[in-house]
Amino acid sequence: MIVTVTPNPAVDITYTVDQLTPGGAHRVTSVSQRAGGKGVNVARVLRALGERALVVAPLGGSTGEELAAGLDRADVPARVVRVGAASRRTITVVSPAGEATAFNEPGVALQPDELSALLAAVAASLAGARVLVLSGSLPPDAPPSLLAHMVAEAQARGVPCVVDAVGPALLAAAAAEPDVVKPNAEELLATTGEEDPVAGARDLLARGARCVVVSQGAAGMLGVTAAGTWHVGAVPGLVGNPTGAGDAAVAGLASALATGLAWPESLRRAGALGAAAVLAPAAGDIDLPAYERFLTSGTVERVA
Amino acid sequence: MIVTVTPNPAVDITYTVDQLTPGGAHRVTSVSQRAGGKGVNVARVLRALGERALVVAPLGGSTGEELAAGLDRADVPARVVRVGAASRRTITVVSPAGEATAFNEPGVALQPDELSALLAAVAASLAGARVLVLSGSLPPDAPPSLLAHMVAEAQARGVPCVVDAVGPALLAAAAAEPDVVKPNAEELLATTGEEDPVAGARDLLARGARCVVVSQGAAGMLGVTAAGTWHVGAVPGLVGNPTGAGDAAVAGLASALATGLAWPESLRRAGALGAAAVLAPAAGDIDLPAYERFLTSGTVERVA
Repeated sequence: MIVTVTPNPAVDITYTVDQLTPGGAHRVTSVSQRAGGKGVNVARVLRALGERALVVAPLGGSTGEELAAGLDRADVPARVVRVGAASRRTITVVSPAGEATAFNEPGVALQPDELSALLAAVAASLAGARVLVLSGSLPPDAPPSLLAHMVAEAQARGVPCVVDAVGPALLAAAAAEPDVVKPNAEELLATTGEEDPVAGARDLLARGARCVVVSQGAAGMLGVTAAGTWHVGAVPGLVGNPTGAGDAAVAGLASALATGLAWPESLRRAGALGAAAVLAPAAGDIDLPAYERFLTSGTVERVA
Repeated sequence: MIVTVTPNPAVDITYTVDQLTPGGAHRVTSVSQRAGGKGVNVARVLRALGERALVVAPLGGSTGEELAAGLDRADVPARVVRVGAASRRTITVVSPAGEATAFNEPGVALQPDELSALLAAVAASLAGARVLVLSGSLPPDAPPSLLAHMVAEAQARGVPCVVDAVGPALLAAAAAEPDVVKPNAEELLATTGEEDPVAGARDLLARGARCVVVSQGAAGMLGVTAAGTWHVGAVPGLVGNPTGAGDAAVAGLASALATGLAWPESLRRAGALGAAAVLAPAAGDIDLPAYERFLTSGTVERVA
């Protein structure tokens, strides 16, 4: 089983409108809603790959109940930490022209005892876990060391760990020596201040991460370890919804760790999954036949 | 007690963002949320005026629970009809520049037995009611005669009735001979097809309404009866949030009916409340001292 932790989950709501006009009043023509947050998306992709996944997340308020119901509908098992504050929402407004405008609530701070309960839930989930995945933003005001504590707990039990985070939380987590960290290029720049992604990745390696995978959108994906740097080519002419592509790549890296797939083949799997996610309309979904095609056609090359 | 019916209530959510950019991803810097819907706003204003008000509304899902909790926090008593479908939301995105962009969910259709339960709840609430107020849109696919049935029920019990609706629902309600109907100028045009608001109001009088009050924003308010036409002047230079001004005017008309205030003084009260609502930041709130000032300074003139 692969455990995915989402410290700041969200109900993802999508509105369709004819056209977005700032200052206007819009009649929403369709509303869709699902359980979201990066770790939830990772778990959905793992499920699509036939892997067992367990979501660990704090949920609160009526939005937390909607999240729990959404996980249930998606048949994704969850270990829920009940908290007092209502879980956040994200609203994405789409128009037939294809434009997507997102409004992301920041979430509400967890109480100290709720943070402790989340750490305890992660620790309890590690028994029998093959990989631990830590994804996404922290709740407001949470200590940047939160993910590092989780990585340390996994290390103590011999469970490999993938971290998809940004900023101080990523820096602190890297120091706990996780197996893989996966920022995207923007997040890597924001975290390390390095314009060059290879330099940024080496910064995280120097801090303790054993492997840094950097998703670069249409420029493909980089994998950097102490042994060298590899590049996964992007699928040419790929058009779709890039939201959730990074989460699909994380699912690929986690399932590769779980099955002992050798580097750089794990990187190829991550790249193929990221591309297959672009072809699926909703974050957390993948186009499975496309994934299988991309797995054979994808290129992974060592960079000099 | 004044009973206000909201057939299609909403959780009103307000997001603050730095600036709305179509196609962008926005970090929401503040989230506020309250029980909404036009009849709920009317009840809030009545409460501020010291009148007892009872909200009747169908509520469903976790958004329905949020609505019920919001009414509770606002100390507005409610007779709730539990329904299967989740109550709708409205999202208003505001930026410090003052621009407000609204996204209004349409709501979900009620089942036939739920519509019957709503009618029964309205009938049960009429015992001891001094006025019945029917406000806002119908749920999707509801029969246009829904409000007319409620008006007829009130007539049968001698309870005067105010209707704030639009389109076929307003036309059907007018035929049931309510004491007052209050569309705004746009709604009156959309309902009757008459460009001239006095002609539109006379159309509704001819259909059965005993009095038609037309809110015209910065152009004030018209009151049209079989005896003639009156105009309430707008407060000059009024700047604020016009959302909810019509609901405040309806509260004024309802409280005037409840206390037997003579025409056209009731029109003066409605105009002063509408203006006082513009000065309050949230729909359903009024600036009470401003209301008292506007009540003395307001002009009501018979139109030739």
